[in-house]
Order: sequence, then structure tokens, then C-alpha cells
Amino acid sequence: MGSQLNTSVPTRLQTSRNTTAEKLLVAASELMIERSSIEVSLSDIAQKSGVNAALVKYHFGNKDGLLLALLARDAATEMSQLEYLLAQPISPTAKLRLHIGGIIRAYHQFPYMNRLIHYLLHESSPKAADEVSKFFVAPLLDFHRRLLAEGIRCGEFRDIDPVLFYTSLIGACDHLFFGRHAMSRAIGVGPVTDEVCREYVKHMEALICGGMLNPNNDKAASAAG
Amino acid sequence: MGSQLNTSVPTRLQTSRNTTAEKLLVAASELMIERSSIEVSLSDIAQKSGVNAALVKYHFGNKDGLLLALLARDAATEMSQLEYLLAQPISPTAKLRLHIGGIIRAYHQFPYMNRLIHYLLHESSPKAADEVSKFFVAPLLDFHRRLLAEGIRCGEFRDIDPVLFYTSLIGACDHLFFGRHAMSRAIGVGPVTDEVCREYVKHMEALICGGMLNPNNDKAASAAG
Repeated sequence: MGSQLNTSVPTRLQTSRNTTAEKLLVAASELMIERSSIEVSLSDIAQKSGVNAALVKYHFGNKDGLLLALLARDAATEMSQLEYLLAQPISPTAKLRLHIGGIIRAYHQFPYMNRLIHYLLHESSPKAADEVSKFFVAPLLDFHRRLLAEGIRCGEFRDIDPVLFYTSLIGACDHLFFGRHAMSRAIGVGPVTDEVCREYVKHMEALICGGMLNPNNDKAASAAG
Repeated sequence: MGSQLNTSVPTRLQTSRNTTAEKLLVAASELMIERSSIEVSLSDIAQKSGVNAALVKYHFGNKDGLLLALLARDAATEMSQLEYLLAQPISPTAKLRLHIGGIIRAYHQFPYMNRLIHYLLHESSPKAADEVSKFFVAPLLDFHRRLLAEGIRCGEFRDIDPVLFYTSLIGACDHLFFGRHAMSRAIGVGPVTDEVCREYVKHMEALICGGMLNPNNDKAASAAG
């Protein structure tokens, strides 16, 4: 099965208007939202979409192929805006703020996206994990490299390593969605509502840009250095 | 099986010197490191430890119980130091820096810890997930609440929400270990060595305390506000 994995999912989705494939992705997405889980079978997806189960195999190779295509579809808006964002006539700091909001809103819009990424990177085939790295991790990391270089060049950012930066920003955004229901159930922290999402965007913008030390405190400012 | 889950694992491990239980945990830990995976069966663990498989059930109820006890054992050093750290006669900023290093080093020392937390929070029984929340998430969050309150009171920290802070700090630390092997394989980022770990501690200390804006840039400083 692994060898049938479609290795050009994002491109194919962008360039064709294959309505059967789209129907299957819509059905998969709706089932995951209904069940609050990515545990949906190919036959459930086929049944909900009204598409013959054999066509799942034809369009996506196997279930990992379908899940990859779903992640590519859901992340497409944010990923396609990376180049656009870099080209805007605004400051690197303003670009960074827009990017932080975009990442968090993408996770929020598709509540299963976090689980999907974790599954594809860790529990599926090595080939599927490599695909996620190539169409999701690599372009984001490349964007961070270029944005940080621009910000450092014009004196807005201090010198900061892009791989370490990527890890901390994406990790912090991802974790809002990863850990929340466990916190919610056991220790009384509420679910990720629209309001929590907006607060987290503000929190992350302020933390990433300025840290948590009180800028009016001389001792704190020197401790940050 | 779920109803047999031991709900007082951390306390029992701290207060007894049960060598059979300890042997089982040592064997589980060694197997996970050898295999770079938390996929180890109870019979593998029993065989490696030389302990009868029936005793796993006696000591831990089931496999989730054993995994919970392993996480409690591995996190014990860092968790037990939280109270000690708060009581030290050093600044809140210095405590925060020590805490960031402690969290990252705990993940690094037990390379399967990240996967274990993810598994227990998301793929095991709701009861096991609640246990992780109670003995791991809740004390950390409580520590963050008290440390932030202290730092805000004495003017070192700006006003910052503890739940959002917890999410971003733990997410960023966790992600160094979560995503790294996927990055490594597909896009040429090296594995998490001792050196990378030290660099990440420095990166996180600087980012959390002072953010990424260049403190010598007037425009950047005003943009952070």
C-alpha cells in the first residue's frame, strides 16, 4: 500500500478540479469535525460522500494519501499566502504578526488539523511523514528563514536561528490545540473558543516580539540581554 | 481493564521501594530507548526485566498504568524541584530561566517522554489522560501561576496570563522533541544532540524573556508594545 502513496498531492489538488476527490475530502473533513477525532474509516468516508469506495484508492492511493491531501487542502490558504506576505510593503515585524495570527487561525478553522499532523508525522508511513515535511514543514521553515533574514538586515530583529525559531513558534501555536482538551477535562481550563483563539494570537504576538519582561523595569531589561 | 488503572501511581512510587515495579519501569524505559519508540508490549517488558508478566498487572493494573508510572518516574525530578525553585532567594526571572532549562533537559534525558505524554493524553483511556493532567499538567500550571504572580508583583514581568503562558512555553519545549526527526529526515535538519539542546535552552530563555525584537532599534521597541 505504501508504494501507492500519491507523492504530488498538493500540486494535483491545486491544478485540477476533480470533484470526486474534493467530495471525498469534504466528507472526511465533516466526519472528523462531527466525531472530534481523525479515526474515520475509508468506508465511512465513501458512504458519507456517496462515492464508491474503490475511487478512494484511485484518487489517493490509500488512507494516508487521503489524509495528506486533506492536510494540504486545509493548510493551502496559509501556505499560499507566505510568498504574498513576504512581498508586502510592510515591516518584518508587521509580517511576523500577521503570520502568527494566520497559523493560529488555520489550526482553529480545522480543529482536527493538529491531530492530523501528529498522526502523519508519527504514526503513519515514513513516506507520508516525509511528504508532510516537504509540503508543510519545509515551506514554513523557508519562510521563517527569509523573514528573519529581512528583519535582521533592517535592524528590527536581533540575530536569531531560524530552525530554533520555527520550533518554538510552531510548537507554541500547535500546543494550544494539542493539550487543551486534557487541560479542560481535568483541571478546569475552558475549551478553545473564538475568544481564546484571539487572546492567544495577541499573547503570542506580544511574547514573540517583546518577551515577558516588564519593559519599564531596568533590572528586567538588563536580565534579558 | 480501564477500571483497574492505578490512580495513585506517583505517590506510591515515591513512598515505596518496590523493586519489582522499579525493574519493570527500567526495562520499559530501556526498550523504548533501544527502539526509539513507545511501542513495547507487556510481554517484551516482562521478558527483559525477568519478571513474570502477571506481576505487571499486579503492580500497574494494565499497560496504561505502567506508562503513567514511567512518565511519573521520569518527570519526578523536575516536578519535585518546582516548590524548591519557588522558595529560592533569587529573582523571578532567574527562576524562570532555571525552569526553562529544567523542562528541556527532562525531555532530552528521556527521549520517549514526549511521545509518552502525547500517547497518554490522546490515544489511551480518558482516565489515563486525566491522570497525566493531574500529576503533570496541573502542578506545572500552578507553578507558572505562582511564578508569574511573583514576577508581576515585583515589577519584573509584564501582566501575562498563566494558562496562555503555560501553553506557549510547554508547547515550544515539547516541539523540539516532537517534530525533529521528521525535519531531520526530509529537510536536512540534524537530530537533537546535547549541543542543540543547550542552544535551545539559550534560545528559549532569550525569546521568553526579551522576545526577538532588536532592543537597540527604536522602531522595533515601539512596535512591541
